[in-house]
Amino acid sequence: MTTNAILETLSQPECAALLAGGSVGRLAIVVDDHPHIVPVNYAAEGTTIVFRTAADTILTEASLRRVAFEVDAIDEDRRAGWSVCVHGDGAEITHGVDAESRHLRELFLDTWAPEGRDRWFKVVASTVTGRYLVPGARRFDR
Amino acid sequence: MTTNAILETLSQPECAALLAGGSVGRLAIVVDDHPHIVPVNYAAEGTTIVFRTAADTILTEASLRRVAFEVDAIDEDRRAGWSVCVHGDGAEITHGVDAESRHLRELFLDTWAPEGRDRWFKVVASTVTGRYLVPGARRFDR
Repeated sequence: MTTNAILETLSQPECAALLAGGSVGRLAIVVDDHPHIVPVNYAAEGTTIVFRTAADTILTEASLRRVAFEVDAIDEDRRAGWSVCVHGDGAEITHGVDAESRHLRELFLDTWAPEGRDRWFKVVASTVTGRYLVPGARRFDR
Repeated sequence: MTTNAILETLSQPECAALLAGGSVGRLAIVVDDHPHIVPVNYAAEGTTIVFRTAADTILTEASLRRVAFEVDAIDEDRRAGWSVCVHGDGAEITHGVDAESRHLRELFLDTWAPEGRDRWFKVVASTVTGRYLVPGARRFDR
C-alpha cells in the first residue's frame, strides 16, 4: 500500500496558534545522556512554555538546561495530524521576582495532576517548528 | 483550585496492552546533547517497538543508541489520561537477516506519512513504565 500524503511545514504564526490552543504537551529532557518524556499541563505565552511540577520529580534545573517540548493532535480516522516542537532552555521561575516571572506565574495553567505542583518552570524557545500531515489517497497497488 | 486526582502506576501487562493498541507514538532522541521529539507510526511486539523512517531524517544509528518512546491518550473533558514510556536502545533492522529482524519487518505497520519510509528500526525496551491520571473532584476553595 502506498499513499500520496503530504508532510507540510507549519508557519511560525500557525505554530504559535497551535501552542496557544493546547493544554497538555510532552517535555523531553536528558538525564545522564538518556532522554525522558514527561507529559505536562502547560500554558503558552507566545512561544514561551510554562508548566508546574511537584518538588520530587525528575525535572530539575540540570535536566531542563536543554529541552524539547511537543504538542500534537492525531486524527486516527483521517490518518492526519499535526505536531509542533519547541526547542529551548528551561528555567525555574517559582521564586523569580522579576516582572516576567511574576507575569508567567499569573497565566491560567490548569493542572490536572494531584496537588503539590508547587514549582513553576518556563521554557524559552530558541526554535519552534511544526509539521502537518495532509492525508492522501491510498492506493492498494501491492 | 485544588484537586484530589490520583496518579496511579500501571502494571507491566497494562503497559504492554496499551502499547499494543496504539498506532502513533513519540520518539525522544538525543543529538548533540539536545533532546528531540519525533512522532512516528509504530507497531509493538510485546515491549519491542518497530517504526520506519525515510533515509534523510534525524533518526540515525547514533541518535538511537538511547531513546525514549512514549504513547499516551488524553481525555480533555474528564481531565484524565494515561501515558506509557519505553526506555531502551534503538537499532536499524532494515537489512537484518536474523529471524527477529525478519519477523519485526513483517509486522503490520501502517505508516501515514509520504512514501519512502524505507528504513526500519526497532527499540528494545530496558524499562517500561506507565501512569494513569484518575480524575478527582475539583474544589474551588481559593
